[in-house]
Amino acid sequence: MATHRRHLPSKPPGTLMAPEGAVIPASAQVIHYTPEGVREFEVGAIDELDGEMLSRGVTWLNLNGLGNLSLIEGLRDKLGFHPLALEDVLHAAQRPKIEDYPNHLYVVLRMLTYDGALEAEQLSVFLHGNLVVTIQEREGDCLEGLRQRIRSGGGQVRGMGADYLLYAMADAVIDSYFPLLENLGDAIESYEDTLVLQADEGVITDIHRLRRCLLGMRRVVWPLREAVNALARDSHPQISEPVRLYLRDCYDHTVQVLDLLESYRELAAGLMELYLSTVSNRMNEVMKVLTIIATIFIPITFVAGVYGMNFEHMPELKARWAYPAVWAVMLAAVAAMLLYFRRKGWLSKSRTTPLEEDPAPPDPRPGAPGTPP
Amino acid sequence: MATHRRHLPSKPPGTLMAPEGAVIPASAQVIHYTPEGVREFEVGAIDELDGEMLSRGVTWLNLNGLGNLSLIEGLRDKLGFHPLALEDVLHAAQRPKIEDYPNHLYVVLRMLTYDGALEAEQLSVFLHGNLVVTIQEREGDCLEGLRQRIRSGGGQVRGMGADYLLYAMADAVIDSYFPLLENLGDAIESYEDTLVLQADEGVITDIHRLRRCLLGMRRVVWPLREAVNALARDSHPQISEPVRLYLRDCYDHTVQVLDLLESYRELAAGLMELYLSTVSNRMNEVMKVLTIIATIFIPITFVAGVYGMNFEHMPELKARWAYPAVWAVMLAAVAAMLLYFRRKGWLSKSRTTPLEEDPAPPDPRPGAPGTPP
Amino acid sequence: MATHRRHLPSKPPGTLMAPEGAVIPASAQVIHYTPEGVREFEVGAIDELDGEMLSRGVTWLNLNGLGNLSLIEGLRDKLGFHPLALEDVLHAAQRPKIEDYPNHLYVVLRMLTYDGALEAEQLSVFLHGNLVVTIQEREGDCLEGLRQRIRSGGGQVRGMGADYLLYAMADAVIDSYFPLLENLGDAIESYEDTLVLQADEGVITDIHRLRRCLLGMRRVVWPLREAVNALARDSHPQISEPVRLYLRDCYDHTVQVLDLLESYRELAAGLMELYLSTVSNRMNEVMKVLTIIATIFIPITFVAGVYGMNFEHMPELKARWAYPAVWAVMLAAVAAMLLYFRRKGWLSKSRTTPLEEDPAPPDPRPGAPGTPP
Amino acid sequence: MATHRRHLPSKPPGTLMAPEGAVIPASAQVIHYTPEGVREFEVGAIDELDGEMLSRGVTWLNLNGLGNLSLIEGLRDKLGFHPLALEDVLHAAQRPKIEDYPNHLYVVLRMLTYDGALEAEQLSVFLHGNLVVTIQEREGDCLEGLRQRIRSGGGQVRGMGADYLLYAMADAVIDSYFPLLENLGDAIESYEDTLVLQADEGVITDIHRLRRCLLGMRRVVWPLREAVNALARDSHPQISEPVRLYLRDCYDHTVQVLDLLESYRELAAGLMELYLSTVSNRMNEVMKVLTIIATIFIPITFVAGVYGMNFEHMPELKARWAYPAVWAVMLAAVAAMLLYFRRKGWLSKSRTTPLEEDPAPPDPRPGAPGTPP
Amino acid sequence: MATHRRHLPSKPPGTLMAPEGAVIPASAQVIHYTPEGVREFEVGAIDELDGEMLSRGVTWLNLNGLGNLSLIEGLRDKLGFHPLALEDVLHAAQRPKIEDYPNHLYVVLRMLTYDGALEAEQLSVFLHGNLVVTIQEREGDCLEGLRQRIRSGGGQVRGMGADYLLYAMADAVIDSYFPLLENLGDAIESYEDTLVLQADEGVITDIHRLRRCLLGMRRVVWPLREAVNALARDSHPQISEPVRLYLRDCYDHTVQVLDLLESYRELAAGLMELYLSTVSNRMNEVMKVLTIIATIFIPITFVAGVYGMNFEHMPELKARWAYPAVWAVMLAAVAAMLLYFRRKGWLSKSRTTPLEEDPAPPDPRPGAPGTPP
Repeated sequence: MATHRRHLPSKPPGTLMAPEGAVIPASAQVIHYTPEGVREFEVGAIDELDGEMLSRGVTWLNLNGLGNLSLIEGLRDKLGFHPLALEDVLHAAQRPKIEDYPNHLYVVLRMLTYDGALEAEQLSVFLHGNLVVTIQEREGDCLEGLRQRIRSGGGQVRGMGADYLLYAMADAVIDSYFPLLENLGDAIESYEDTLVLQADEGVITDIHRLRRCLLGMRRVVWPLREAVNALARDSHPQISEPVRLYLRDCYDHTVQVLDLLESYRELAAGLMELYLSTVSNRMNEVMKVLTIIATIFIPITFVAGVYGMNFEHMPELKARWAYPAVWAVMLAAVAAMLLYFRRKGWLSKSRTTPLEEDPAPPDPRPGAPGTPP
Repeated sequence: MATHRRHLPSKPPGTLMAPEGAVIPASAQVIHYTPEGVREFEVGAIDELDGEMLSRGVTWLNLNGLGNLSLIEGLRDKLGFHPLALEDVLHAAQRPKIEDYPNHLYVVLRMLTYDGALEAEQLSVFLHGNLVVTIQEREGDCLEGLRQRIRSGGGQVRGMGADYLLYAMADAVIDSYFPLLENLGDAIESYEDTLVLQADEGVITDIHRLRRCLLGMRRVVWPLREAVNALARDSHPQISEPVRLYLRDCYDHTVQVLDLLESYRELAAGLMELYLSTVSNRMNEVMKVLTIIATIFIPITFVAGVYGMNFEHMPELKARWAYPAVWAVMLAAVAAMLLYFRRKGWLSKSRTTPLEEDPAPPDPRPGAPGTPP
Repeated sequence: MATHRRHLPSKPPGTLMAPEGAVIPASAQVIHYTPEGVREFEVGAIDELDGEMLSRGVTWLNLNGLGNLSLIEGLRDKLGFHPLALEDVLHAAQRPKIEDYPNHLYVVLRMLTYDGALEAEQLSVFLHGNLVVTIQEREGDCLEGLRQRIRSGGGQVRGMGADYLLYAMADAVIDSYFPLLENLGDAIESYEDTLVLQADEGVITDIHRLRRCLLGMRRVVWPLREAVNALARDSHPQISEPVRLYLRDCYDHTVQVLDLLESYRELAAGLMELYLSTVSNRMNEVMKVLTIIATIFIPITFVAGVYGMNFEHMPELKARWAYPAVWAVMLAAVAAMLLYFRRKGWLSKSRTTPLEEDPAPPDPRPGAPGTPP
Repeated sequence: MATHRRHLPSKPPGTLMAPEGAVIPASAQVIHYTPEGVREFEVGAIDELDGEMLSRGVTWLNLNGLGNLSLIEGLRDKLGFHPLALEDVLHAAQRPKIEDYPNHLYVVLRMLTYDGALEAEQLSVFLHGNLVVTIQEREGDCLEGLRQRIRSGGGQVRGMGADYLLYAMADAVIDSYFPLLENLGDAIESYEDTLVLQADEGVITDIHRLRRCLLGMRRVVWPLREAVNALARDSHPQISEPVRLYLRDCYDHTVQVLDLLESYRELAAGLMELYLSTVSNRMNEVMKVLTIIATIFIPITFVAGVYGMNFEHMPELKARWAYPAVWAVMLAAVAAMLLYFRRKGWLSKSRTTPLEEDPAPPDPRPGAPGTPP
Repeated sequence: MATHRRHLPSKPPGTLMAPEGAVIPASAQVIHYTPEGVREFEVGAIDELDGEMLSRGVTWLNLNGLGNLSLIEGLRDKLGFHPLALEDVLHAAQRPKIEDYPNHLYVVLRMLTYDGALEAEQLSVFLHGNLVVTIQEREGDCLEGLRQRIRSGGGQVRGMGADYLLYAMADAVIDSYFPLLENLGDAIESYEDTLVLQADEGVITDIHRLRRCLLGMRRVVWPLREAVNALARDSHPQISEPVRLYLRDCYDHTVQVLDLLESYRELAAGLMELYLSTVSNRMNEVMKVLTIIATIFIPITFVAGVYGMNFEHMPELKARWAYPAVWAVMLAAVAAMLLYFRRKGWLSKSRTTPLEEDPAPPDPRPGAPGTPP
């Protein structure tokens, strides 16, 4: 939700400045692979990358943290990455996007995790010939499975080029959204089941938080859809035709995520209505109890009050039959009132446990309640 | 509503893996027909399909269940179906779509059934020359009528090609949505009629479930519309010109389904408002009863209390006329209050049975209530 | 609102089957006209249409009812109308649309009437050279004025071709929507005036019905707009240039209808809010009466109760001045409470008749209440 | 809001018929100007327009009222105006639009005035070579300033052609919307200020009326935006390039009007919510008063009732200390209850005059209440 | 919110008139720079600009205030700025836009500040060859950082042309929106935290003000997005290719601002719901207290009333055990009622301080309340 000012207003655009409190990586991890083999090592500076190595196979250089400015400046100075792109890397609050610079492609992805609140970590990916450079804000990502596949030679990743690696990364990021969505869907379903029974104020705050989380997720996935679509549709010289087919598949998954998000948003809004109607019903029930008790006792209390009066000339007071008669009158009044309430339907137990009483009253609704369509 | 993770993050895309608990078909059903005749049989492997048979007439191969991986791998290895498409077949939570692969067309349809909750079963259709391959998640589909027409030679299906068979399938799936919609519409109408009379908490849960069902159905039909439109509009080499005319008709029906769905969604939202206003009205009525009873008895109870006081010097207590006079005062107070309530209109019976009292008060509304326009 | 299954699932598309309970016309009405004259007669079969007659002037063949299948099959067999179009004629729940078949134009219009509920009758129009064929579900339509003009030679219809006749029909159908809209607008205005005074449960059902009617009408007009626009904009060989100018005018009217419908929908939604706020206000008033009565009498009833106690040692009970003093205290308490309520503003009469009391309290709102802008 | 049936259904389209009750102008006002001078006069028939005059300078012919049919037929017969356009002139309920007829341009504008309700008067403008014809429904318009500029030679209007005159008219009409908008904005702001203090039922009707007015205005401005955009963007032979620059400016203003309208619509919807929440709060306050009074007095009234009982064996009644002790108990109960309410926060005065008590309770909200951002 | 009539209706468009109360600058500030150096001075009239100076380096002329008409007329007469553009400068209520005049580009930006209410100041920028002219309504802007960079030679601004200066200005304006957004986001979050605890009427007014502010801001940023996009996408001869890359970056930031605004708008709408539900809950709680107290005491008060009656023949009154027995009955009734309320769950403390009681009742919701996804 934070807005992350992009650069201090007095700084010129294109200035590279590490954000405050950024993780400072000492070195960058390199994975170089060809169909035949894999090599992993670390480099402390960009010019340690072997020129010959870059010319064959695929090289994946990964940077965990934005604090080592000399490494990032190396990308600009040695590899010609555009300063605007590198500025976006450092001010890590970009929307997912793809930018086509003269000699490289710059893709911003966002990895989402949920731990009390939705956390988004920016993953910047550069595609530059055979070299793929990824820069993340912190250590730990959702690409470990991909690394394993490269190491083990599983799947086709070793046999394909750097553009396939880029696709595999986007695919891994999008796939990591699904477990999140599953949790969200489970939470919504559990609220649907328990809301009617237990509608306290904590629930409403929880639902609000849920909606905030859906909103935040949508802010990430919506531009991602656009970006992946642009990658799959427009012709970029860095993306080969077969990989584009894979990207189309990737796009399908993004649309699926968005679809679910929109459905969840509607369902969460419906939860709010469900909650409000439950509160209304409960209030109604409280009012009914009050009204029944008050309506029954207020009139007979009045009767008792009348015969508590101290007038000297109240003939009834002397009669033997008077006291039992008053009791009879009062009981009759109570019975009449109970009858009235029963006819109003106020005495039927409220439906807090709907399963218990369903068989009792015949349901006049034609469609069975649980099976609308 | 489930999100169905597409593939385990550590698995490479394009890996074929049967989903857990999938139905394992022993064989595939084949229907081969020409204008002259029909032949039905089963095959245990893809290469049992006769090459000569494929070259004339139309062959429809159907697979009930996703568990027999060797059959599905046969499609990839013998017929060249794309691994991404087959992966989509196996991870059966795709949106309806059409994908144009170099040598075949891949169409995802979803059959909907309602049994307590909306169930969607994926129907994957491949069009590959004269061969149509369909793969469903379970046995049982809405294509039985189509099979009968092929067997009996009814309609034009035997005289047309494989593209017409594809159309006939899409048509059958979309037609199967209409009874569902009819039920939904009936449910909404029945709620509209009974909601005012019976607004308990079960109704609100039912309406929420109804809206969820409409939402789920829309998630299926919306992309279907796009897919059918793409089939009818774009030129695919596999689709001939006359069949495209039929597909345009098919598209019309999808739009009609969507139209109804949107109307139902608005009506269901209106039901919620209707419910809330009914609850409000009922609360109002409860309050009125309480207020009338309390307002009538509280003042006269006070009067009784006054003459229950034990002061020694209360001259009224000695008067002969005092007791009847107090009764007169109390009755007058009650009458005044009843008059006040009648003028407020609180004493008119609440309209739970609107038909009974309509004739009583003259209706000031110019448009007759039941006939707005 | 019914969904009208298009054809039985087991029937092939393109099968012609009369709907259940359809009107069975014995014959078709023919109006043949040239600038010079008009001739009206009936035909029992399509081939009774004179070939020479079709080659000059304009021929309008009208069929009242869908039950005479041999006539409709005649259209297919003699005139080459497309089976899909004729199927749409028979399953009369199509959205308004225009379809361009190789040798004829097929236009679906819907005539709306309101009689307790919105009724839509499908009017299918075929334009085939000089021949216009109209097929309606029942006798009775909104084209009588057009027939009169043809008979009397009024307007330019006799001097123009079959395409102008098609336009004149669409124009007559759309014009027939305006009286309906006028009624709807009047109903909304009357509710706006009376809602505040009389907000019972019947009103809310009426408003819901009104919204349902607006929704149904929009479902008809929205696709009509598209269809008329397509007719006016795309070049169809059957439509001449001057008639297209008239169709553009027709399109304008459809847009106007839609405009009004959308406004009415918003106003009807506003009526719902108006109703709910009226109910809230009324509840507020009920509560205020209860609170005032209870708050005034409960404390003084307590005072009376205190002096009703039977303690032996209550010195006040013996004092001469005690009884009047208690009355004084109770009256003072009542006065204090009334003052408090007056300061709260609870004692001002509720605004059920706003005109009566407007002059009383000075209005602090700067914009005069009745003249916001 | 009226729907204004366009022509009687039995009348053919294109028939010219004066609307009922139309103003009948005796003559038309003509202003003819060249850069050098101005001439003003009246004509009783269209053919009084001097042919030579039309060939140089600009001629503006204005008609106040639709009742003189011979003048309007003159436009059709002498100048070749299209019958459909003239029909639109006479049935004065058109949306703003521009129509390009072969030899003239037809523009419909709508002048808005507010006098209790929103009134729209149609201004039809024809551009035909050097001649501009305007037809309005009644005398009185917003073009007086433009006339003055022509007479005085102010601005560039005298130096430009007939297309600039058309632009100046559209500009004058759109400028006349701004004072209306200013009033609407002021009304909304004043409601925002006073709603919390005074939320009676009259306010809700006023807000509904305000929303209706905004809706009506939007129905006029939305198509106007389209029309002006079409004028500025499409190449019409009648519109010269420099004037198109002015029209672009005009378009900007229309967009600005729409922008404000949309904002006002949202704010008016927010007013409704503000109102409802105010009513809720007030109800809450009423309930609190009732609850406090009842809760304090009901228990102690019970205590008094207990000692009002007439049992013979109630030892307490004899004790000297009993009466003061009962008072002590009752006062203690009241004190306990007051403490409880204070802890609940129910005793703090309700915020009807927020300025008075703001300093009292420390505000736990971090953002100062009046200064969110 | 003000609507700022553009020009008096009787004034011709294109007339230059200083707005009322405008700041009257005595002179204009000029900054002239080349890669080598900077020169700053003031000019009192436009023709003091040195022609030679204009031909090399970049000249930035800034005007603080709209009151000195002779300076602005100088722009029209000496530099050929279009009168319509200058009129827009003077009537400072334009939406952000870009207009392409034959020899110059005119860009309207709006600087936003918040001081009790959202204030927007118009910044008009002209790009005319090497000359950039900025005109603001008052002194004080968000360009000071840019000026410092020019003076110090920081960044690349000195090495680039006038188009880069234009970009740097737009960038500075957009960057100045982020702190505003941060404040808005903080305000929303703080309301989310405190709303449940403290929901008085002031909060609802604050939220309404917050929404009004978001609405106003969106009215500025939405057209800005369009304008910046047009600058970045369309080819303007004044904008060079490398600067267009920077503008694309600028566009990204505008989209980011809009994204946040839309999220904030949804969250603010959610706050309203949160508030209403809190008020409902509180009312519920008040009702419960009333109901519990009344329900407990009303019946036993009735019992006390019964034995306060003065009948001569009430045998119980004489019994020794009667008084204690009545107490026992009354205590039993209270106990029964407390039990009933406990079973209803009404006696559990309301969740005003959710943290205190969370551990007490076992939570039946499956998803942990604070961690939905």
